[in-house]
Amino acid sequence: MKVETVPYRSIWLDDDGWSVRIIDQTALPHAFRTVRLTGVEEAARAIADMRVRGAPLIGATAAYGLALAIRRDPGDDAIEDARARLLATRPTAINLRWALDRVAGMVAPLLSAERADVAYREAGRIADEDVERNRRIGEHGVALIRAAAERNPGRPVRILTHCNAGWLAAVDWGTATAPIYRAHDEGIELHVWVDETRPRNQGASLTAWELGHHGVPHTVVVDSAGGHLMQQGQVDLCLVGTDRTTAAGDVVNKIGTYLKAVAARDTGVPFYVAAPSPSIDWSVVDGASVPIEERAADEVAFVTGSTADGRTETVRVVAHGSPVANPAFDVTPARLVTGLITERGIASATAAGLLGLFPERGTVAGGPRAGAEAPG
Amino acid sequence: MKVETVPYRSIWLDDDGWSVRIIDQTALPHAFRTVRLTGVEEAARAIADMRVRGAPLIGATAAYGLALAIRRDPGDDAIEDARARLLATRPTAINLRWALDRVAGMVAPLLSAERADVAYREAGRIADEDVERNRRIGEHGVALIRAAAERNPGRPVRILTHCNAGWLAAVDWGTATAPIYRAHDEGIELHVWVDETRPRNQGASLTAWELGHHGVPHTVVVDSAGGHLMQQGQVDLCLVGTDRTTAAGDVVNKIGTYLKAVAARDTGVPFYVAAPSPSIDWSVVDGASVPIEERAADEVAFVTGSTADGRTETVRVVAHGSPVANPAFDVTPARLVTGLITERGIASATAAGLLGLFPERGTVAGGPRAGAEAPG
Repeated sequence: MKVETVPYRSIWLDDDGWSVRIIDQTALPHAFRTVRLTGVEEAARAIADMRVRGAPLIGATAAYGLALAIRRDPGDDAIEDARARLLATRPTAINLRWALDRVAGMVAPLLSAERADVAYREAGRIADEDVERNRRIGEHGVALIRAAAERNPGRPVRILTHCNAGWLAAVDWGTATAPIYRAHDEGIELHVWVDETRPRNQGASLTAWELGHHGVPHTVVVDSAGGHLMQQGQVDLCLVGTDRTTAAGDVVNKIGTYLKAVAARDTGVPFYVAAPSPSIDWSVVDGASVPIEERAADEVAFVTGSTADGRTETVRVVAHGSPVANPAFDVTPARLVTGLITERGIASATAAGLLGLFPERGTVAGGPRAGAEAPG
Repeated sequence: MKVETVPYRSIWLDDDGWSVRIIDQTALPHAFRTVRLTGVEEAARAIADMRVRGAPLIGATAAYGLALAIRRDPGDDAIEDARARLLATRPTAINLRWALDRVAGMVAPLLSAERADVAYREAGRIADEDVERNRRIGEHGVALIRAAAERNPGRPVRILTHCNAGWLAAVDWGTATAPIYRAHDEGIELHVWVDETRPRNQGASLTAWELGHHGVPHTVVVDSAGGHLMQQGQVDLCLVGTDRTTAAGDVVNKIGTYLKAVAARDTGVPFYVAAPSPSIDWSVVDGASVPIEERAADEVAFVTGSTADGRTETVRVVAHGSPVANPAFDVTPARLVTGLITERGIASATAAGLLGLFPERGTVAGGPRAGAEAPG
């Protein structure tokens, strides 16, 4: 998508043809800065420090990180070390493992001399496929927005989103934002409520920045405001991304997603999740068994922003001596999810619904809940 | 309650016998600073700027503000002007009107020369009664915590609270914290999850500070984390305050309270509200008709805290050019409230429940929902 007038992806090969460029998302929205990654350590640190974040982009960065490692040393041990190093960066997003497995699986049968080229090609393919997948999510999802517009002529469709499932979280388009950009480009009038998304403020700093650059009308609110907006009839639909969705449709996503989903159910607002297939974990049925990353207390205790005179400053906002807990994700049970927007269409958040669109996954681990529940 | 080892109230008469001292709550938790109020304008500004906040303390400050005005000019017009000025500071908390009506009603029949003394006495009585009322809320509420402790021997009772309904929000003890302080003083092992409470961070800056000074174990979390904690079985009960509770038990409180209540219902966690009688609006049945204050966008867009070298600094956290909305309260429907802890005991959140404890209010505006619903 565009930054000022220049089209960008969130990750790309640098002009030298081998190093990798990312946008340093920790500097946004105050500064737009790109960073060059030249090795697996830099790639791993970029993921762990959240210079890149968002399930799809984590996957693409890990794939390129593995390619960087293989370029330096294409031996089996080096590849396994690099893979383990990258896998250890973030525990929740399933795309990380998916992308690493794909690149590692591709190069395993090859001679050492061939491996780097193939790894780069596969990483590039993962990035390109992500763009295409999200474009399709946009196509399927825009139908929901169009229908809401037709039900409410003369006023914008009001969408609430949480965290950043935008193009900065993917390679382009974004997942939850793909239908939004698509609708906007088609001339459908809409307005996006952007959850601030503490503690790292991805909503206020990334989603708001993205939407602003693309000209999409939006308003930032604190995370606590969404329930009130729904009660007031100010939200036509909720639309969020996912870090991992189980085979039965439980949605693991940024902490606070569950609160919005349960309020949406209470107020009758449809709750949709943009779930590209690489974020579906076919090996897990119950979301409660997905590891929830506990991140550093300092992410909550300190806030970084820009001062009136343009400096970047970090301030403490929690009383001294008070302990802090920082779980980064929560699980929204499938029963609260109206539908999963995948690149193949919109599925009910059930095993049956997902298998209807992905029949080749018919051998997934079943479970007591498989197919048991229809979406409300 | 104590600050270091010195017992404090949140508002008191200064040594001169007429000016009023408050704790500047906007400076907490980084600095403990008291401010002297010498006139109604200063009192009104202290409320509007949230140097004092919390429904009970807003009431006490308004009462003292009116006394300060009457001391300067005891004429009817001046009193009416001062009353209007104070009433305009915050629209949601009902205690403000209640306290002003009480002082104004007391002095109205008196000669000018007698008015100031009586106004001060009445303001002092409002403050003292608040302390006693909250002490009783502590007595009634501690039974809930004691029962939870008996159900779960060998581990602390885990309580989740939102915003600051502590002694800083009242005159002493606090409303939601009164049972917590009481339980702690009785030696019941407990642990409090403190919601950060964006945008003004009253949880992280005031509740955490209070609990820390009193030695109550606690952990600060972002507002989005509470649902996850409840899903994980980490919360035995929720305990919050209220800015206004209707005659049918709808609870108007800090934005985000509704999200916690709806998650508590979804996860089977009891949800209690500490509601001293002055915060009950007997004239209103439906919470949806209570005005919800929309505060300045800058409260969301900018965060103030302390830098590593001890300076207070304000930083921007929202993308430039992105609009912000800042509704300050929401309405938790009575059906989600397990019980209202008043100074007379614990009532179900229904008209019948409240009238059972306050039979003298038997003539309140009825409504379609009066007494219709029992708590779950």
